[in-house]
Amino acid sequence: MSKQRVLTGITTTGTPHLGNYVGAIRPAIQASQRADVQSFYFLADFHALIKCQEPELVHQSTREIAATWLALGLDVNNAIFYRQSDVPEIPELCWMLTCMAAKGLMNRAHAYKASVDANVAAGEDPDFAITMGLYSYPILMAADILMFNAHKVPVGRDQIQHIEMARDIAGRFNHHYGEHFVLPEALVDDSVAVLQGLDGRKMSKSYGNTIPLFLPEKQLKKSINKILTNLLEPGQAKDPDTSPVFQIWQAFATPEQTAEMRQQFADGIAWGEAKRQLFELINSQLAEAREKYEALLANPAHIEEVLQQGAEKARAYSKPMLEKVREAVGIRKIK
Amino acid sequence: MSKQRVLTGITTTGTPHLGNYVGAIRPAIQASQRADVQSFYFLADFHALIKCQEPELVHQSTREIAATWLALGLDVNNAIFYRQSDVPEIPELCWMLTCMAAKGLMNRAHAYKASVDANVAAGEDPDFAITMGLYSYPILMAADILMFNAHKVPVGRDQIQHIEMARDIAGRFNHHYGEHFVLPEALVDDSVAVLQGLDGRKMSKSYGNTIPLFLPEKQLKKSINKILTNLLEPGQAKDPDTSPVFQIWQAFATPEQTAEMRQQFADGIAWGEAKRQLFELINSQLAEAREKYEALLANPAHIEEVLQQGAEKARAYSKPMLEKVREAVGIRKIK
Repeated sequence: MSKQRVLTGITTTGTPHLGNYVGAIRPAIQASQRADVQSFYFLADFHALIKCQEPELVHQSTREIAATWLALGLDVNNAIFYRQSDVPEIPELCWMLTCMAAKGLMNRAHAYKASVDANVAAGEDPDFAITMGLYSYPILMAADILMFNAHKVPVGRDQIQHIEMARDIAGRFNHHYGEHFVLPEALVDDSVAVLQGLDGRKMSKSYGNTIPLFLPEKQLKKSINKILTNLLEPGQAKDPDTSPVFQIWQAFATPEQTAEMRQQFADGIAWGEAKRQLFELINSQLAEAREKYEALLANPAHIEEVLQQGAEKARAYSKPMLEKVREAVGIRKIK
Repeated sequence: MSKQRVLTGITTTGTPHLGNYVGAIRPAIQASQRADVQSFYFLADFHALIKCQEPELVHQSTREIAATWLALGLDVNNAIFYRQSDVPEIPELCWMLTCMAAKGLMNRAHAYKASVDANVAAGEDPDFAITMGLYSYPILMAADILMFNAHKVPVGRDQIQHIEMARDIAGRFNHHYGEHFVLPEALVDDSVAVLQGLDGRKMSKSYGNTIPLFLPEKQLKKSINKILTNLLEPGQAKDPDTSPVFQIWQAFATPEQTAEMRQQFADGIAWGEAKRQLFELINSQLAEAREKYEALLANPAHIEEVLQQGAEKARAYSKPMLEKVREAVGIRKIK
């Protein structure tokens, strides 16, 4: 029996931060080392175009994200790591799935509906400023997944609907043209930490409360010092469960270290000291990867080489798969 | 100054009939011989998937249409003749344009609106049975055109809106990313004949009133004998302007021959005789091409070879164009 295939996309907008690391990158990199699954990781630059019309940002983000994942130890021998735009079979499959997808299905997408609701509330046309990219990206996502007949797609709860849509589209295709696609399943891991940001809300680019993952050491220290605290003095007991300092600590510490820090909070640790320890903890875990990251960015040709090798491995799947799909729909050589 | 580029797509569903020949194929083939324009003709098989989920039909139609155009003398040395699905740059550009196209633009497409109206009238959900292929095919059509920076696109009046949409999408892209695309213009030739079918309505597959273009001689004769006439006897004067026999005659005859037939109608020509002459006229114009058509279908590998040569010529345009577009949106190699 062939291995289970697990597929993860990473949209190339923005610079990775500690929240991305804890919530997505770290568990994915651990999974990339599993020998019993075939993992696919891809830089979703076609998706980036939906949200970002700044070419320099799309490009820079692609470079930084690739360097980040490689620096953190993504096992590119075991996993397949590629850039979406290096697989021309994907946009072609996307069109074929477009012909299979019901418009009514797209109408029910949460992200689209939220945009419509906001427009209506503002007294605008329901589709005001909505592009076809936003509207039809679940089809591109279906193509990403079905191209490799992935069995499992690790996603957050907000993305479950897109996996259901991919199943629906795959089911329709199979119904019309025969069984070509695996129906993918969403893999939701609720145990994955959601990291708090500087202000105690979820760490997110849109809140402006992030700590970038590979800040130089001094800046990382500075950034950690900005985490929200209260006015309690050294010696006064502090509540770990309402403190972002403690929450972030927990995401990096062993259970023993977490128990120790909980005790220090009860004992009235000074905020400055808690933050110093937090910096030491995070820095110790990231310092080596940061060095690799900087070395990679200094040698971008190597990043490209790794991506090209990944593309070759990905296309060993996507080319024969597309051939089958073409044959199924009637796009064939004349003979 | 480089030549004007003129682009024509041929959807690969169905077998060409006399109406297609008179209304589209004959003028296009004449245009293919012009030395002052660079013509592009393509078999639109990605478009066929929107309407046709029968793989054998899509394939057969592609073969027949290619053979038809070649048999009729399409100048493949002067013009570029290719199959859409042989140009993988097209679906990729399609996605990039999808990110640029406003959803509101698609909402205004006549074909989509007609489907919605029919659904509403039938008490169904407005989007009942509408696929994303139908909804977003103006974007694929924009990609077909913009891929080659075509200046002119010969279309019927019902297709003018799609050219306007391609202009809109091109304009948005140019606005965001710099001037990369020519804004195409619709080329509407109202002098092109609309052929009547067996029943006197417009000849159209959907009316079931067509005469296939390359029927064997005997069947062509039989088919022409089915053209609607009235009960007027030989010797009784007949009105040419209400007779499909005369209308079809006109589409194939010289002005002199048309004047002569008008006289014969006034003189009371028998319907059988008029149809005999019509058969002779059409058959004389098609017999040679029919022979070539049959020879081509007997040697399909040659058709494929011609299409591959065409694809190579087309990709000499599409590859560098897509490279520019990728660079513009930020999809670049890392270096």
